[in-house]
Amino acid sequence: MVVRRPAGPRVVSLGAMTERLVVVGGDASGASAASQAKRANPDGLDVVMLERGEWTSYSACGIPYWIAGDVTGPDELVARSPEEHRRAGIDVRMGTEATEIDLDARVVVARDGDGRTERLGFDHLVIGTGATPVRPNLPGVDHAGIYGVQTIRDGAAVIARLAAMDADRRTLEQAVVVGAGYIGVEMAEAMKRRGMEVTMLDRAPEPMTTLDPDMGCLVRKAMEGFGVRVLGGQLVDGFEADDGGWVRSVSASGTSYDADIVILGLGARPETTLAAEAGVDLGSSGGIRTDLRMAVTGQDQVFAVGDCVESYDRVSRSWVHVPLGTHANKQGRVAGINIGGGYATFPGIVGTAVSKVCDLEIARTGLAMAAADRAGFRYEVVTVESTTRAGYLPDPQPMTVKMLAELGAGRLLGAQIVGREGSAKRIDTCALALWNEMTVDELMQTDLSYAPPFSPVWDPVQTAARAVAAKLR
Amino acid sequence: MVVRRPAGPRVVSLGAMTERLVVVGGDASGASAASQAKRANPDGLDVVMLERGEWTSYSACGIPYWIAGDVTGPDELVARSPEEHRRAGIDVRMGTEATEIDLDARVVVARDGDGRTERLGFDHLVIGTGATPVRPNLPGVDHAGIYGVQTIRDGAAVIARLAAMDADRRTLEQAVVVGAGYIGVEMAEAMKRRGMEVTMLDRAPEPMTTLDPDMGCLVRKAMEGFGVRVLGGQLVDGFEADDGGWVRSVSASGTSYDADIVILGLGARPETTLAAEAGVDLGSSGGIRTDLRMAVTGQDQVFAVGDCVESYDRVSRSWVHVPLGTHANKQGRVAGINIGGGYATFPGIVGTAVSKVCDLEIARTGLAMAAADRAGFRYEVVTVESTTRAGYLPDPQPMTVKMLAELGAGRLLGAQIVGREGSAKRIDTCALALWNEMTVDELMQTDLSYAPPFSPVWDPVQTAARAVAAKLR
Repeated sequence: MVVRRPAGPRVVSLGAMTERLVVVGGDASGASAASQAKRANPDGLDVVMLERGEWTSYSACGIPYWIAGDVTGPDELVARSPEEHRRAGIDVRMGTEATEIDLDARVVVARDGDGRTERLGFDHLVIGTGATPVRPNLPGVDHAGIYGVQTIRDGAAVIARLAAMDADRRTLEQAVVVGAGYIGVEMAEAMKRRGMEVTMLDRAPEPMTTLDPDMGCLVRKAMEGFGVRVLGGQLVDGFEADDGGWVRSVSASGTSYDADIVILGLGARPETTLAAEAGVDLGSSGGIRTDLRMAVTGQDQVFAVGDCVESYDRVSRSWVHVPLGTHANKQGRVAGINIGGGYATFPGIVGTAVSKVCDLEIARTGLAMAAADRAGFRYEVVTVESTTRAGYLPDPQPMTVKMLAELGAGRLLGAQIVGREGSAKRIDTCALALWNEMTVDELMQTDLSYAPPFSPVWDPVQTAARAVAAKLR
Repeated sequence: MVVRRPAGPRVVSLGAMTERLVVVGGDASGASAASQAKRANPDGLDVVMLERGEWTSYSACGIPYWIAGDVTGPDELVARSPEEHRRAGIDVRMGTEATEIDLDARVVVARDGDGRTERLGFDHLVIGTGATPVRPNLPGVDHAGIYGVQTIRDGAAVIARLAAMDADRRTLEQAVVVGAGYIGVEMAEAMKRRGMEVTMLDRAPEPMTTLDPDMGCLVRKAMEGFGVRVLGGQLVDGFEADDGGWVRSVSASGTSYDADIVILGLGARPETTLAAEAGVDLGSSGGIRTDLRMAVTGQDQVFAVGDCVESYDRVSRSWVHVPLGTHANKQGRVAGINIGGGYATFPGIVGTAVSKVCDLEIARTGLAMAAADRAGFRYEVVTVESTTRAGYLPDPQPMTVKMLAELGAGRLLGAQIVGREGSAKRIDTCALALWNEMTVDELMQTDLSYAPPFSPVWDPVQTAARAVAAKLR
């Protein structure tokens, strides 16, 4: 039963009266919100979750590992299946898409797999529509065999294509990856591990533009060492198909690259069509703008979470679109607590990300140089070489740390780490330093752990902080 | 030439007038102070460094790895040799011991290896006399073959003894380690890796009393799995020797344990004899008390650094003796900057430590339960099990995180981590949270890095923070 709320302050339903929460999207953020709200108010809240796909609560970040063969099937990537959500009391509607949100009438129109539509009234709404891989508007981009990698369905399509190629016993399989961001480099490695010849094309001179080019260069060299062809400065012109309509080559900057399969790793845009049509405010990044409680600006009990929203970046003091599972989970939890009658806020982000590619660990937080310039900061920057263990132990592995600190104040602005095993998680130390607006002078003096199997006596993060602090003086 | 300073505000020497800095102790802290001061004021400062041993600036933490065979010789442990210090302009006197400090006359009496003494006037003094392994006052403790492990000389003595045993072709070599702290467990592993039968005896029920017993239990099980016999609740009564005066057994709680070699891992006391005789203030921990600039209280231009001082613990708000190389290096640097005419302070510690024993990574920061009780805190505590990678990837390794948070305020009080590769350095995140007096509620929401090769989507530190925050509500 749906209880319509009168205008004015929200009235808490009593006794047998329940309110309805409709959640649009059953992936990380939406499902977190649904679970959290239901747990907080199991009797007073009737929760309906609409998911147009076939899976709920899954790790999209795991898809490259599934394609590489580390994970045997999509079910392993699922943290909570529809059946598990149902056992927790959530009315999960799979294969069901929300086609319209009417904020005035407080109704969501849902269409199921058979094309039947239903108007679902709501007291609380969560929009968790995620993000969509960028598909450039180029000739041939819709040929068969060209895949974005965002959902399990995308992953399954890639795997089906690879299996078909295997069945054909094609000997020299060529994969072209367009775009060299996180998904691009992870997918390039995955295809290489599947035994394919892999070419990665990117517009920028070096891969991973969330890093500065000198750090991206280290990634390129590791990938080249692993046998991936990495080509920067490439503008893709279009895609050609064979007679069957399957992609057979990619044309970029005047050269044609053979391709049995193409992966698009060009990032993802917030999927806000439904929200925008409903009149929900979008921010300048294109994501839905929310307040601290993840409530949509100017709306009553309408929340938005996950890859479709923009987040407050505490370092640049601007709103940015950063589609990551870690934010999605936290935002979903915050919305769910608020819907369940509690109070929670999402405090923003500092731009932390980590990846592992070809045995290289790659991490960043805060602002890289281009972003710091755009934000108007003036800063000093250092790059230091250190090791993952004391130099006198066997096999100390290299680790490079780059660090930016603001002129004058000496505040840490950002850090980038590229190195072998044991390097990357040190970025969390930098992330907390950014979070607390610490100076590099103070970071250098903090009580970080030390023992010979982990680093030289000055932790590499502190060596970098010390070097940039010295430069500031 | 020594310039005597008039009473009153310090006068900076000009032109050809130089001041003299005498540094007592040439290990990590003293040598850092000497180097930093000389670098800051190369022409105005005449630096004399007295070291009674044969090595300068070495990694004492590396000694167990040398004994285990990972490091071929003591020179590898040396970060900066006497000759390198001399090239930097420091007058290093090796094999030379300070026998007296006269603070009124501002003179240090130094005795060299031939027994000659010299009175060295000083304008600035650094006391870096280190710490001494605890030797219990028990029958037979001075037998040959019983070693503390604090200096390179100690390590060399152990290695010489092991070599002599090897030369005797003794088949069943028995090592007994007394004490199960960091040095004890590292030395137990080192002896085991040398092929010996190892028994570790400790008074406490579980090893590593800087951890809570439930976490120490995980360390015991790992060591037992590695073949080390770990016996808790053992009170050592004494040591028996053979006819040659070499130790042959350890008696503990009424049982005798055969021993060809005995390692004492009972911790270290600040070596303050010289300082105390000179009238320098000691704190309640037994270490030399200093101010923020590492200057000895009530003295002019007298500094103390490293394992002989006590440090301010920011969590318990008390002064504690924590002899670690990481603090020693930082404190030496701070003293050197101040002596060189600059300004720097040492901001204290939060009790961070890390170790790797038998493939287990062990880390702690802040207060364990007993220390939190002693400090008067009331708190909630949780222990969570997580993994070093996403559960769907091959070989996720276990990681246990224990966390304490204050009632009411919700402030983080301490964390302990025991797990396989990739676990321990996460303690630095907790250390920075303690440093900034963060609540567990905020820590749970911070922007830590996530990707499947590193953890589940909630980093184990944040899973623990979330669990203890929930318990506080």
